Amino acid sequence: MFENKERTEIEKLGEFGLIDYLTKNIIINNPSTVKGAGDDAAVLNFSGKKTLISTDLLLEGIHFDLAYTPLKHLGYKAIQVNLSDIYAMNGTVGQVTVSLGLSSKFPLEAVEELYEGMLLACKKYNVDIVGGDTSASKQGLVISVTSIGYADDEEICYRNTANEGDLICVSGDLGGAYVGLQLLEREKKIFLENPAVQPDLEGKDYIVERQLKPEARRDIVLLLKDLGIKPTAMIDISDGLSSDLMHICRQSEKGCSLYEEKIPLDPMTYETAREFNLDPTVCALSGGEDYELLFTVSQSDYEKIKNNSDISIIGHINEKASGMNLISKSGNVHPLKAQGWNAFSQP
Amino acid sequence: MFENKERTEIEKLGEFGLIDYLTKNIIINNPSTVKGAGDDAAVLNFSGKKTLISTDLLLEGIHFDLAYTPLKHLGYKAIQVNLSDIYAMNGTVGQVTVSLGLSSKFPLEAVEELYEGMLLACKKYNVDIVGGDTSASKQGLVISVTSIGYADDEEICYRNTANEGDLICVSGDLGGAYVGLQLLEREKKIFLENPAVQPDLEGKDYIVERQLKPEARRDIVLLLKDLGIKPTAMIDISDGLSSDLMHICRQSEKGCSLYEEKIPLDPMTYETAREFNLDPTVCALSGGEDYELLFTVSQSDYEKIKNNSDISIIGHINEKASGMNLISKSGNVHPLKAQGWNAFSQP
Repeated sequence: MFENKERTEIEKLGEFGLIDYLTKNIIINNPSTVKGAGDDAAVLNFSGKKTLISTDLLLEGIHFDLAYTPLKHLGYKAIQVNLSDIYAMNGTVGQVTVSLGLSSKFPLEAVEELYEGMLLACKKYNVDIVGGDTSASKQGLVISVTSIGYADDEEICYRNTANEGDLICVSGDLGGAYVGLQLLEREKKIFLENPAVQPDLEGKDYIVERQLKPEARRDIVLLLKDLGIKPTAMIDISDGLSSDLMHICRQSEKGCSLYEEKIPLDPMTYETAREFNLDPTVCALSGGEDYELLFTVSQSDYEKIKNNSDISIIGHINEKASGMNLISKSGNVHPLKAQGWNAFSQP
Repeated sequence: MFENKERTEIEKLGEFGLIDYLTKNIIINNPSTVKGAGDDAAVLNFSGKKTLISTDLLLEGIHFDLAYTPLKHLGYKAIQVNLSDIYAMNGTVGQVTVSLGLSSKFPLEAVEELYEGMLLACKKYNVDIVGGDTSASKQGLVISVTSIGYADDEEICYRNTANEGDLICVSGDLGGAYVGLQLLEREKKIFLENPAVQPDLEGKDYIVERQLKPEARRDIVLLLKDLGIKPTAMIDISDGLSSDLMHICRQSEKGCSLYEEKIPLDPMTYETAREFNLDPTVCALSGGEDYELLFTVSQSDYEKIKNNSDISIIGHINEKASGMNLISKSGNVHPLKAQGWNAFSQP
């Protein structure tokens, strides 16, 4: 993969050399970062606000395939998926820690690309990298990111606080990341069968990017604040609309009605799903990795939210006894199923 | 390894099932834990204190060998090495997050053992597990722990604040974890050559435990508070006395004199090192993984600290120009070398 490029073995630098090399490009931007990388622990000052912590583990061969994932995109995504969790609490991210396990197939130049994507994501979202760990890995690339955020107590949105009658809302559109993945997997297969064939991703930029380079929806958190809306419950869509909506309902001890016709789909997602003989609605319900925000708001907020092109109202919260249901376009009622992505049942 | 025991495949439970299974035993003890596992992020309340964050990545085949590491001990150690970083800041640990990457060779019973060790360590040190991530792994066992602590601003001990004339102190004794590892590696080799031979670790409990089941020195942090001493700089010994003392000196822009005869060695460490034809002093200087606290105190604190059996005064901080030196038992002066453990140059 890196044969034609400059190749510096990491072993030459050693662990401290690598850490020095990586941390020299880190710029601390947040006043809440008292002390970043370089001591036993980072020191943060959230002056009276609540601290929010979330962590994700990304493993080669499980969460990403380096055959079609550029390392810079992977670094960018590794940060985004973690920030998304803090935004889903209605918080602000201040810092991340980044741990890397690197197999010897990775030269320094590869680590640099990965880190470049991470730094880009951090810069864009005003987040400081304040520590981490690096190690050799015997098999593949291991990425562990922990994000640290903050919020005032009354701002925080939990999953278990949706109320009967609340409107169910979602940002952006769904299913694109999953359909993009199908496209990348198909092109990988074609390439493996005949390396002379160039990948055909023309005109598919949007859904490929949804898979490779998602954006955490900080803009939605800010928009809701501007609109004067505090969601009654919120979660980010990592496992799929169905699975994540069920988390809100179960934890809130409520039911829901989700309307198939209201689920936002990008035309490219719709068309490409059809090309693959996939049901676009199923892609949205169970595809996952969209990193959109799924939230509930009080009915009294309807006027404030109804005209936002980036937010769709897709259903409402009911009493628990009514169950968690999908109302199909033809009006049939189907119980929701959590067919979200399961890291333990991959082929 | 798990052939004779009950075996439940993790795939059967799925990711959410596993998380539910693991989190059901978590008891939240700290008032600073507002919300633990079960939402997008944990919510913590450090009411005005500074937040401390540290993270470590432990990879199978690099940081541990399951041939001689009981999983319960491994879980215990994974927590301890992380807590140690927060204590090295002179802080209190409140929470940890735990991410696990599990290869299919691990049945649920194995994960349970690992987690049992983690819960034991957390209970003993009054730490809450507030989140994490679980995933399948194609690359052996992956453990990523992030610890979150807090301290008043004026309590925090950095690495870069040692002053000329300060006394260099270390808790406990050194080199035991490294010599214990040599013993375990020898017994593994013998076992692989002849599985009928039982491991001969008799009478070596102390150093084997130093390797397999280290204890973070919270007691020293509390002792120093009782004695009315605030270290001028502090670090925990993970890479080895030499490497970690050099971190303090370099970051403080100072030199040091370290006296070989003052380095605390347990008799069993000394004797066993000799059996392996190893220099016990080199084991202490470069062995690492002792998780003792290395700190500097003002000379004016000498009277307060001198009679503590658990703290050794091993040298003093000098001006930078004098260099970082080891004074041997025979009075010779050798520049210190950082031959700490390097995860990138393992065989």
